[in-house]
Amino acid sequence: MGALELENGGVIVPCCFDDDEEEVEEYGSGSQGSVEEAVEVLLRGLGEDIRREGIKKTPFRVAKAFRDGTKGYKQSVDDIVQGALFPESGLNSAKGHAGGSGGLVVVRDINLFSYCESCLLPFRLVCHVGYVPSGQRVVGLSKLARVADVFSKRLQSPQRLAHEICSALQTSINPGGVAVVLQCWHIQMVSDGESIKSSQNWSSVHVRSTSGTFDVQKSDLLEDFLTLLKFQGMRSSSSNHTNGRVIKPWCPMLSSTLSLSPCTAPPMIRAVTSIIRSIGENPNRNELVGTPLRFVQWLMQFKKSSLGINLNGMITNQNDKCFDLEPVLDMFSELNIPFCAQCEHHLLPFHGVVHIGYYRSKIQDAAIGIGCYDRRLMNLIVQFYGCKLQVQERLTRQIAETVFGIYNKGVMVVVEADHVCMISRGVEKLGSNTATVATLGLFLVDSDAKSKFLKNVVECK
Amino acid sequence: MGALELENGGVIVPCCFDDDEEEVEEYGSGSQGSVEEAVEVLLRGLGEDIRREGIKKTPFRVAKAFRDGTKGYKQSVDDIVQGALFPESGLNSAKGHAGGSGGLVVVRDINLFSYCESCLLPFRLVCHVGYVPSGQRVVGLSKLARVADVFSKRLQSPQRLAHEICSALQTSINPGGVAVVLQCWHIQMVSDGESIKSSQNWSSVHVRSTSGTFDVQKSDLLEDFLTLLKFQGMRSSSSNHTNGRVIKPWCPMLSSTLSLSPCTAPPMIRAVTSIIRSIGENPNRNELVGTPLRFVQWLMQFKKSSLGINLNGMITNQNDKCFDLEPVLDMFSELNIPFCAQCEHHLLPFHGVVHIGYYRSKIQDAAIGIGCYDRRLMNLIVQFYGCKLQVQERLTRQIAETVFGIYNKGVMVVVEADHVCMISRGVEKLGSNTATVATLGLFLVDSDAKSKFLKNVVECK
Repeated sequence: MGALELENGGVIVPCCFDDDEEEVEEYGSGSQGSVEEAVEVLLRGLGEDIRREGIKKTPFRVAKAFRDGTKGYKQSVDDIVQGALFPESGLNSAKGHAGGSGGLVVVRDINLFSYCESCLLPFRLVCHVGYVPSGQRVVGLSKLARVADVFSKRLQSPQRLAHEICSALQTSINPGGVAVVLQCWHIQMVSDGESIKSSQNWSSVHVRSTSGTFDVQKSDLLEDFLTLLKFQGMRSSSSNHTNGRVIKPWCPMLSSTLSLSPCTAPPMIRAVTSIIRSIGENPNRNELVGTPLRFVQWLMQFKKSSLGINLNGMITNQNDKCFDLEPVLDMFSELNIPFCAQCEHHLLPFHGVVHIGYYRSKIQDAAIGIGCYDRRLMNLIVQFYGCKLQVQERLTRQIAETVFGIYNKGVMVVVEADHVCMISRGVEKLGSNTATVATLGLFLVDSDAKSKFLKNVVECK
Repeated sequence: MGALELENGGVIVPCCFDDDEEEVEEYGSGSQGSVEEAVEVLLRGLGEDIRREGIKKTPFRVAKAFRDGTKGYKQSVDDIVQGALFPESGLNSAKGHAGGSGGLVVVRDINLFSYCESCLLPFRLVCHVGYVPSGQRVVGLSKLARVADVFSKRLQSPQRLAHEICSALQTSINPGGVAVVLQCWHIQMVSDGESIKSSQNWSSVHVRSTSGTFDVQKSDLLEDFLTLLKFQGMRSSSSNHTNGRVIKPWCPMLSSTLSLSPCTAPPMIRAVTSIIRSIGENPNRNELVGTPLRFVQWLMQFKKSSLGINLNGMITNQNDKCFDLEPVLDMFSELNIPFCAQCEHHLLPFHGVVHIGYYRSKIQDAAIGIGCYDRRLMNLIVQFYGCKLQVQERLTRQIAETVFGIYNKGVMVVVEADHVCMISRGVEKLGSNTATVATLGLFLVDSDAKSKFLKNVVECK
């Protein structure tokens, strides 16, 4: 089998996608055990020693997170809604527009996450749901969020998710109509020659789905609903507003051009296929056929030593090299260097920016144009340590130690990151983020330099 | 027993706070059943028919929400942390400041809620945790959020909560030091003569707790930590920054001056005392002694018909009264009328603003100074329907219908509210909020007027 390539969304289906009975046997067919074994295959494919302390429980954690994150397959909308329909007099008993005086009900800004059916990575979304009560009953407000949550905890595309939420509410509540608007954000990786960095620009999309009275041509209901969302600062006129049509693939992996080694890929792809099967999904569903390949492509970016950077050749002690006399040192900083690493505990990305403060002589600037050199060097160091299975604390320390090997008077590193594992697992702490600091040399004793560096970081935002 | 009054935080302890064996028997001592019975006592005290459709399952829902919301009493920090300590070489094996090059680790912006120990209402908080790893190990980042969650799901004051999180992390991880900063927001009720409205200004407080190396006088660690929080726009110099001391009572019920009827209060107070006991708390703990009284005081603001407003006297049809000829009608609006209601499904507040659009003749303005009259009238109507056990859909409809009784050409009402029950129960959808609309008369057919009104609402933000 040759190298497997995906270009502009085109998927070359390799032979291992065939429904192979033996393979199902190999990973079981639904038990958590099978997911754990599949994750072990992936870790080995990444060149990792699966007995290493940090990752030896990773298969267990990944299986648990994946099971929790896709529990929507086992949940019933009717169970959620049936107990929470409350009679309200004053509403028209017939279906229709604002029967009696009971009109639109909107729950806005429901924070959720879902799993991208194209690449298996979690994506974040904000959901807005509106409906028109009818039949003299209203549904408990929290149930709108609960139902949205059931469908978001499945493998989804934004548009499919909006349709499923809308259709389930229409069927279970039987109201005048339902409208759903989703704003979704997907992590992006930009391959930039040898280095791979996370773009600060998320791939985002804005979709909607409507039913019942919202679909009536001459009704203002949909407009009223969108206006109510505007109350919260939502720009319904934004350029990625698709009116239900997604113009370009929203999942960045659909237009990825990364290639895979033919040796490691098939077992890993089979492992991912078995994970998809284990949650009750059909790996042969059209939208899922290329997913195992894309997920493996994503993962393989974090293969141990996959970056061909020989830092040894670049790293020489600049302080030693350029000065015979004791130099006058100044504090410099390289700020907002983007990175995307893979959390070794959960096999999920964490990404953000690195800020590096360091001491060197100003004279070096003029001498060897070292400013540009520094930026490029620091960027390479960040990519080298960032683009693998990592923990943020270690990444911070490794960057600091490596830079200290070059500028050995003093180094301070701040890494700020969002952890997808913090967002999408049981914790579900949306909006939380992590900062780590490493300090070496002069920064440990020079409070002023430290303050100045941190102030630089604050001001560069 | 005379009327029970609380003034400026002073608590008059009534005789019914004595630990009465019979009373414990009456409500059981820990089973969910006892909480349900206690909630029934509260509902009866509020003048409600507990067989009414909307509230007949409220005791069950309240008991469940209270049990979920205080499950932190049953959780062990050691269980959470022990499995998630990971060895990291490069860290100093001794405790201390940034051993090796591993320094500060900060998880910021953890969204949580807790229960106010002074009044039993949930309050919202954002938690920031920092620690300095030592002993060559780090803790899984999500565990910092998990531990904060354990202590927030108990009856707390902000300062106690900060201390407990800090102390538990120090003990379980045994790091160089721990720092915790909390920003907390408590709902406020402002008694304004006859009408009661929720102030848009939350009672807020900003507290912190530190241990280990963060407490070393000459260390910059605490300053570094606070600077890292500033990255996220946190103003550590805000006026309510208390440096660990709370100057005025943060719980508004501690300075409430509302009085209670001596007949209904004691059974309700006993019921609340039994709820506190059922979650495993000691109702005789100093901070909890006045809590049942304060919670009942809070609740009794929503007693059925507790507001002595006779709307009938004020509501006459202004359109009919002032005109013999067909008047030229204009659209007027009263925006941002604040309210605080009690969700009848969960016995928890929902609060926000009401916007009312209506048609009347401009000529009436000059004739009877009707502009001021309208504002006062609409405010009274909102308080009358808002200040009781409610659901938002009904509140919206009732306001619309009542205003339509006065200005019967056309009325449109938008209610925007935050539901504490959406935040603090299983759903935990922080940041979500609800908008409901009722439309009557000309607004149903005049799209332009509707758009103009909604535009007014958008622009008044």
